[in-house]
Amino acid sequence: MKIGIYGASGYTGQELLRLLIRHPMAEVSFVTSRKFAGKPVFEAHPSLFGLTALRFSDAPPEDLVRSAEVVFLALPHGTSMDIAPVFFQAGAKVIDLSADFRLADLSVYEQWYGKHRSPDVVAEAVYGIPELWRDEIGKACFIANPGCYPTSVILGLAPLCGTDLIDRTSIVVDSKSGTSGAGREPQMGSLFCEVDEGFKAYKIGGQHRHLPEMEQALTRLSGDRVTISFTPHLLPVSRGILSTIYVDLVHSRQVEDLRELYSEFYRGEPFIRIYPKGMSPNLLSVRGTNFCDIGLFIDPRANRAVIVSAIDNLVKGAAGQAIQNMNLICGFPEETGLNMVPLFP
Amino acid sequence: MKIGIYGASGYTGQELLRLLIRHPMAEVSFVTSRKFAGKPVFEAHPSLFGLTALRFSDAPPEDLVRSAEVVFLALPHGTSMDIAPVFFQAGAKVIDLSADFRLADLSVYEQWYGKHRSPDVVAEAVYGIPELWRDEIGKACFIANPGCYPTSVILGLAPLCGTDLIDRTSIVVDSKSGTSGAGREPQMGSLFCEVDEGFKAYKIGGQHRHLPEMEQALTRLSGDRVTISFTPHLLPVSRGILSTIYVDLVHSRQVEDLRELYSEFYRGEPFIRIYPKGMSPNLLSVRGTNFCDIGLFIDPRANRAVIVSAIDNLVKGAAGQAIQNMNLICGFPEETGLNMVPLFP
Amino acid sequence: MKIGIYGASGYTGQELLRLLIRHPMAEVSFVTSRKFAGKPVFEAHPSLFGLTALRFSDAPPEDLVRSAEVVFLALPHGTSMDIAPVFFQAGAKVIDLSADFRLADLSVYEQWYGKHRSPDVVAEAVYGIPELWRDEIGKACFIANPGCYPTSVILGLAPLCGTDLIDRTSIVVDSKSGTSGAGREPQMGSLFCEVDEGFKAYKIGGQHRHLPEMEQALTRLSGDRVTISFTPHLLPVSRGILSTIYVDLVHSRQVEDLRELYSEFYRGEPFIRIYPKGMSPNLLSVRGTNFCDIGLFIDPRANRAVIVSAIDNLVKGAAGQAIQNMNLICGFPEETGLNMVPLFP
Amino acid sequence: MKIGIYGASGYTGQELLRLLIRHPMAEVSFVTSRKFAGKPVFEAHPSLFGLTALRFSDAPPEDLVRSAEVVFLALPHGTSMDIAPVFFQAGAKVIDLSADFRLADLSVYEQWYGKHRSPDVVAEAVYGIPELWRDEIGKACFIANPGCYPTSVILGLAPLCGTDLIDRTSIVVDSKSGTSGAGREPQMGSLFCEVDEGFKAYKIGGQHRHLPEMEQALTRLSGDRVTISFTPHLLPVSRGILSTIYVDLVHSRQVEDLRELYSEFYRGEPFIRIYPKGMSPNLLSVRGTNFCDIGLFIDPRANRAVIVSAIDNLVKGAAGQAIQNMNLICGFPEETGLNMVPLFP
Repeated sequence: MKIGIYGASGYTGQELLRLLIRHPMAEVSFVTSRKFAGKPVFEAHPSLFGLTALRFSDAPPEDLVRSAEVVFLALPHGTSMDIAPVFFQAGAKVIDLSADFRLADLSVYEQWYGKHRSPDVVAEAVYGIPELWRDEIGKACFIANPGCYPTSVILGLAPLCGTDLIDRTSIVVDSKSGTSGAGREPQMGSLFCEVDEGFKAYKIGGQHRHLPEMEQALTRLSGDRVTISFTPHLLPVSRGILSTIYVDLVHSRQVEDLRELYSEFYRGEPFIRIYPKGMSPNLLSVRGTNFCDIGLFIDPRANRAVIVSAIDNLVKGAAGQAIQNMNLICGFPEETGLNMVPLFP
Repeated sequence: MKIGIYGASGYTGQELLRLLIRHPMAEVSFVTSRKFAGKPVFEAHPSLFGLTALRFSDAPPEDLVRSAEVVFLALPHGTSMDIAPVFFQAGAKVIDLSADFRLADLSVYEQWYGKHRSPDVVAEAVYGIPELWRDEIGKACFIANPGCYPTSVILGLAPLCGTDLIDRTSIVVDSKSGTSGAGREPQMGSLFCEVDEGFKAYKIGGQHRHLPEMEQALTRLSGDRVTISFTPHLLPVSRGILSTIYVDLVHSRQVEDLRELYSEFYRGEPFIRIYPKGMSPNLLSVRGTNFCDIGLFIDPRANRAVIVSAIDNLVKGAAGQAIQNMNLICGFPEETGLNMVPLFP
Repeated sequence: MKIGIYGASGYTGQELLRLLIRHPMAEVSFVTSRKFAGKPVFEAHPSLFGLTALRFSDAPPEDLVRSAEVVFLALPHGTSMDIAPVFFQAGAKVIDLSADFRLADLSVYEQWYGKHRSPDVVAEAVYGIPELWRDEIGKACFIANPGCYPTSVILGLAPLCGTDLIDRTSIVVDSKSGTSGAGREPQMGSLFCEVDEGFKAYKIGGQHRHLPEMEQALTRLSGDRVTISFTPHLLPVSRGILSTIYVDLVHSRQVEDLRELYSEFYRGEPFIRIYPKGMSPNLLSVRGTNFCDIGLFIDPRANRAVIVSAIDNLVKGAAGQAIQNMNLICGFPEETGLNMVPLFP
Repeated sequence: MKIGIYGASGYTGQELLRLLIRHPMAEVSFVTSRKFAGKPVFEAHPSLFGLTALRFSDAPPEDLVRSAEVVFLALPHGTSMDIAPVFFQAGAKVIDLSADFRLADLSVYEQWYGKHRSPDVVAEAVYGIPELWRDEIGKACFIANPGCYPTSVILGLAPLCGTDLIDRTSIVVDSKSGTSGAGREPQMGSLFCEVDEGFKAYKIGGQHRHLPEMEQALTRLSGDRVTISFTPHLLPVSRGILSTIYVDLVHSRQVEDLRELYSEFYRGEPFIRIYPKGMSPNLLSVRGTNFCDIGLFIDPRANRAVIVSAIDNLVKGAAGQAIQNMNLICGFPEETGLNMVPLFP
């Protein structure tokens, strides 16, 4: 299977390469980068020295469209919308890791991201969380790969959404992300000295662009309109998102009830690990893998459930989930190329 | 003023030394440590090489009681309760940084910490947050210095407690602490490789011992019984606690209303910095200082206030606040020895 | 192939598990730990939750000797010497990751490590750096797996050793290691707060126990007795060793000469990456892999070669090289189970 | 004393502010920044919120020349050379933290840095290491403040330079610097994800611009021309430089001889700490301070001295030493405003 990667010099692009280099059914046929055009991959990614002979291209999509059966777009939002349609209309399978095709409601997209230049293609894209919408994904040719925060939050809340256990107006999500989530573009706020030994919240009060994406999925799972409070934080680690999710329970419940609900909901899922009672997820336990680890707790004094979910933002939150989607749409076993064991320490 | 420090080989003890070495009214007359007994201070604290000629002692309190007018106890809970009364009854001023004298209700103490061996002295201790109970502290001879998490949470919520703006049953506190909060005693969970690049919640669901201390203070400030959900997390940084606090508002409010309330409540406080609209606290901005920085936000869609407070857990959360209390009980200007500028980066 | 791992609750033991879980020819049949005896593996290694059903054993070697065809000993020196002979004499293949069987000269061993209790077995062990002594390893049943510092230094210097290009009395090795090299045993010096933001040299002036091991190998490669200056440093990272090696050149040379020498010496080696001119190794580029990356430089003003070598101390410096040795002694392709792509960032 | 700071939005500028805000004789009258012109200081330096009411200016030097008796230039090389002369010729005291006036030999400057536009002023500048050239500095009006690497290396070697104990052709300097040394300008190589968990050497083989500055000072101290091998490395810490220095001894020596030599040479120096036998400097022990800590070792097998020196690159390596120089040229006690205790952990 010939594969192209757009935006391959960033962290997500590099992660796609890391995983696809060892994927038994994949052969990367081109990688693009404006900044590194013409240069060998190892100039952007020294860790890949000797592992690939590819050079970055900045050829227009029209020139590359015949070189790949599957194309991954690891581009900023606003750029994907111009490239994805070219490949999609030429019959390639498209997996877009930007936000451009995630929001079904165009007016919501434009409120948060600005003008959409390919509005007619939006309806073609399937939102790609395999654990929730596997059948739909399997039939699709165009995947809107979810955001990193949304993946951690939606997987953490999904089993509760369709139940009558919770007060849907009470959801508070406190998420913490590693710095790779900010991308590889040089900016002062991502410098080592600005992040190291620091910790802060940002876009507080319902201002983060991933919010409508979460609410769209939670609403779909619930049947009713769901509104949440979401606060992202910046962690001094490279990888990982941990979300601590608070939900008021309608009636008093035991943590065993929650575990049973979640275990049943995610039965047989290869990438979801529901933890035993009392065990709490740690970013270190998912690093480098496609796992989403979930710990379940009850605060009996406040009658609240506390759900903790952890993913690697570059894998399950981006490149890994994208490859999981590729496996589905190409008919490969879903775990192909994704059986990494976490790197600890 | 002659000063003794118990438990001076740990991180809090070291921080007391760091600050008292430059305090113009203080002269440290003894420091204790079992592990380093007889050794010069720099063997435990190489950074203090050349800055003090003291050696650690492990003499019994009876032998040391005449050597200090003020004694700081940086000991584990359960140990302070045996030492503090000796100094207190001998007329020394006592500032206890353990939990042993923080909880007025003995039954609550014993539920969380076990048997108290000096129950009759508990009532003598004044809970030491100067911004809230300055007058009482000024007249005291025995200070129960607050815990690190409680300091960050209580200062973050205090201005709201006495008002009718909030739903008191809705308080969710998501706190993140640096690793020095776990102390200097070797344990696997505090090793560099276990913490670095990691992040996790712990004691989830109302299980952390600082919870009753917070609720005691918030209840006192509110008039009514307050119950909160509190989740601590472990950050891969050495210093600092950042608490993100969520509270449902009874009526819709603007962030300006909150800022006015907080600015008024903390008017003239030298160590509280209320941030302008849109500015979010960062652990790096309080590092090494006695500041508590507070950012205020409204999530209008959910009608929730989001309050972010940041302290250095070893300073405002321990040694700095202890010295602030010392200044008050000794009649020194409250800021003496505490005018550090944050160390960034 | 049934495999046992001694000392499986430490970092090296965990790394063996991480790699062997995905090794197509291996099946781990037992893991030992005193501290975690009877407990499932995930209690010591939460990252392996769901990936293995093994429990730790502390059964005596006599009880385990029939359960494994290959046994890895990830034990402290002084302990391996009691266990290794039991398995070796029972006909199992033994790969010892401790120092107990690395030094051929017993008097040197005893000078640095103390009394040896299995002196007669020492001569059976083959020192396991496949790139240098592949044939000998292939025929062995007992491997003394090299230390982490020695692996990085010996591979960095080997191509020069047999030549007349260098002054053998001039070798200065300045090595820097991640903290996992200090092991998982709780000790104050390995706590997060003692390491984070710090950096220091230790065992300066020829005092580190890995020194005789390096000199034994370099002497063997050179023909002549080699004495080096070696200074280890502790880095605030979890994984990796980078050695900066300074050697006086006998005659003026170009960096191209060095590159040609090294490329030729390591031609066809799957785990050695000789860098192009001007490219400098980084710990991040070998993380999680069995690579040894080597950068070559000349300081023309001082007529010195500067060689920089980088490995992951837990992989090429321990578990990975051990598995590479296992592959050789078991007749598997040498790269089996070791084709990891570096985890960056 | 009215003080101006050029380039005050970077890390060195911020550090000058941090220290001068608490300097009892200083009043900062202006700070410049192009990027933050017109904005309050806390927008660039949130940690200084509430500690200064200054705003950044980008007025031309001609407009500012009357506003300061002392001006610090924390500018990139090539920029200082245009500004310093304006202030110097107007009679202000100038402390330039760039490289522009450090090299007495103009041809050396131009070989490493490019064309000098104020060549006639170079001779006016005094190289500012107070421990070595205090008298000269005390009479100066224009200080070329040393580079960070040079400060650590020159102080580490100075006591040996004038002796016949060492082979001057054998000096190998292996230095490791925190990331703040790379400045605050956004660039890919300084991003958190590129530095965290990484470690690498750079400008290997005598290519770093600080080399001529070191050799100029060492040559001056020695009487003879000194050439050294210098390799800088990038550490994943924010602050600090640790240099490990190797020198061949002409005759066999004891470490006590070295300690005596160094203690005598630096007798009475407030900012130099010569360590006791066996004690090794750590970046954590100098953090936030103007100390240079020096540990002394002998490798008897190789007959080499190993000297380890540690500084905070932003303090003794930049802003602190600049203020020490200011104190000297203004006639204040040399330690004024510089009596910080290290921040550990």
